[in-house]
Amino acid sequence: MTIAAPRSTRTKPALIEAFTVPKGFGDQTLRDPRPDAIELLGGIPDPSVLPADALAEATRRVLSVPGLPSLQYSRTAGISPLREWIAEREGVPVERIIVTNGGFHGLSLAIQVVLERGDLVAVDNPIFPLFLRGLELADGRALPIPVGPHGIDLDALERTLEDGARPAALYTVPDFHNPTQGSLSAADRHRLVALAEAYDFVVFADNPYRELWYGDAPEPVDAFNLSEHVVHVNTFTKTLGPGLRLGWIVVPERFSADVVALRSRQDSHSSTFVQAVIGELVTSDAGLFDRTLDRARALYRTRAETLANALEASAPGAFEVTVPGGGLFLWPKLTDDSLDADALAAAASREGVEYQRGSFFPSGPGTDADRHLRLAYGHVDAAKLQEAAVRLARAVASLS
Amino acid sequence: MTIAAPRSTRTKPALIEAFTVPKGFGDQTLRDPRPDAIELLGGIPDPSVLPADALAEATRRVLSVPGLPSLQYSRTAGISPLREWIAEREGVPVERIIVTNGGFHGLSLAIQVVLERGDLVAVDNPIFPLFLRGLELADGRALPIPVGPHGIDLDALERTLEDGARPAALYTVPDFHNPTQGSLSAADRHRLVALAEAYDFVVFADNPYRELWYGDAPEPVDAFNLSEHVVHVNTFTKTLGPGLRLGWIVVPERFSADVVALRSRQDSHSSTFVQAVIGELVTSDAGLFDRTLDRARALYRTRAETLANALEASAPGAFEVTVPGGGLFLWPKLTDDSLDADALAAAASREGVEYQRGSFFPSGPGTDADRHLRLAYGHVDAAKLQEAAVRLARAVASLS
Repeated sequence: MTIAAPRSTRTKPALIEAFTVPKGFGDQTLRDPRPDAIELLGGIPDPSVLPADALAEATRRVLSVPGLPSLQYSRTAGISPLREWIAEREGVPVERIIVTNGGFHGLSLAIQVVLERGDLVAVDNPIFPLFLRGLELADGRALPIPVGPHGIDLDALERTLEDGARPAALYTVPDFHNPTQGSLSAADRHRLVALAEAYDFVVFADNPYRELWYGDAPEPVDAFNLSEHVVHVNTFTKTLGPGLRLGWIVVPERFSADVVALRSRQDSHSSTFVQAVIGELVTSDAGLFDRTLDRARALYRTRAETLANALEASAPGAFEVTVPGGGLFLWPKLTDDSLDADALAAAASREGVEYQRGSFFPSGPGTDADRHLRLAYGHVDAAKLQEAAVRLARAVASLS
Repeated sequence: MTIAAPRSTRTKPALIEAFTVPKGFGDQTLRDPRPDAIELLGGIPDPSVLPADALAEATRRVLSVPGLPSLQYSRTAGISPLREWIAEREGVPVERIIVTNGGFHGLSLAIQVVLERGDLVAVDNPIFPLFLRGLELADGRALPIPVGPHGIDLDALERTLEDGARPAALYTVPDFHNPTQGSLSAADRHRLVALAEAYDFVVFADNPYRELWYGDAPEPVDAFNLSEHVVHVNTFTKTLGPGLRLGWIVVPERFSADVVALRSRQDSHSSTFVQAVIGELVTSDAGLFDRTLDRARALYRTRAETLANALEASAPGAFEVTVPGGGLFLWPKLTDDSLDADALAAAASREGVEYQRGSFFPSGPGTDADRHLRLAYGHVDAAKLQEAAVRLARAVASLS
């Protein structure tokens, strides 16, 4: 008979023990907003540009299919026609697409399949902070790499690698970087992949905002999708709605069996129902997805410009604001170096504006992120954006 | 600067390395069914008793709610009114319910939150084989405990504990056991929980078939839901459809923060859309869920009886068949001890019947599972069940 040493159930497994309590970003205890607060907190799509009627109609159709396949078990990697549609859009064989429960889930799978516990991972600095939370699944150690105006700084990365750092992976947001809003150039995409291949690390390219461009169309992703050293993570979260929990990864062949093996030990597969509805939505009317995106892009462009103009009008010279080429955030910088950014966030909260302070985003020292504000404008109408700017201006004035 | 030793990306993380290739149950390579094969393989609900029209209507309604909350982010533990409805049905405070992506996902979360890597886990013998696959997430070691006609054998468990075994957890299916079809008595539920409390292990009570009773109503689950030593796992998989990927766990308070912390590092939360639709379905018409179950119970009872009678009529005396009190499986035993059960499965496949052989189910030695067949009847109509019995009888005759 097998005999094991007793273990008190009061001891947590090492997996769970590695989890830290959220600080700053994601920490609700910091906030006590006014009832009339305008929340510019999250990258939330506006309901007016989500295709609700088409979704209801697609649902009705999939629930009319004899035998109701949308309510039955399906294979772990995803179902037809959704998976094929994604593969065609990404320009890869369908075998390389694995459907996920949203972008963060794709990152989570990549972290668990690629990283040994304790591995070093090069990361954006500043960074989308929730990635660091996900990294705790592998008790990973972050190696911060500066992010410049055009995404992750590859000169800095190369120096770090030449100096001997050997990360197992690298995390970056290549299009409309969160929070800094830059995008990697076409050349830098190839250079990043070349570095990954030379130094044998895996790039986690996290791309939730890619489709929300309203300036120039973003650079191609071929460099990512053609490499065995990139897991390219995407999602319908920002385009069709976060509540669907539906996304995908483009995964190198060498990892795909492991991702499926892991996934089949977690929740088996993404909801067949949601996959069938979205598959029906995007394939029954070939232009619907792009028409939906066109409406969203126009709306977000207007909102970005409205908020940027309102900030300049309400608090002239207080912020250095760039209207980005896409995405859902402004990243204005305080021009007055003597202004206390934490005091500003508190004053703004008193005035009735909630946002993510820049100090929540560094993954290491050496950034000016704490001089910035991350303002989410996607789900806030023009009148409220203007009122938010007025309130922010009052908050700035109250500290001067 | 942080410097890590180089690690070849050819080395898999220990998490992934612990995964074994499926053998027997779940191994598709064994099967090469005839095009006209009748598949009695999985516990699949019949489409005719899934409420497709009500689902389409509920979807239309949730997609008419202003602001489309069903398409937005939601909290990790689950949303209203679904979570409250589940809590009321389970008779526990709503804080103890965590919504999952189906029953297997609930097991997966419990495994990861409760078990340290390498922990010993007492398990049903015979067992639902996929649990052992899930257990590989924690590289857990299985300690087989015999299953008798009324579920897991608590005398055997107690002897094992008295002999010094100290499992960190125990896995069992208390209602309509998969595959053996027995259910734990009310007294045994309390006795199991008392043993868990005395020896400080956590019971993973996996209950997907509980609602599909068609004999006597199953015993209460209070013993499970009132203990700090039980994670009670349930799902809408067998009642409203596996493709939804929607279930829940009743989790002791001491584990709930850890489950949420783990979940928030995986896929954040179950689809708000699916949760909203099912919440609308079960709360907008208070009797709908039970009416749906009543139809399902009547259908499955008829099918179980049809298959049992057809086996006896087609192959008189070849099988010892008990019609269970619920669930989706028959577990007939071969009466002829000299009959080669693997040869029978191969002969049945040639005749055009696919089923799970009993030899796929033991978690250790000492069972007669290999003398049984697991026949799933839920999704197969009466004519096909009768034809399946005829084909099975021909297979038996071909070996005699």
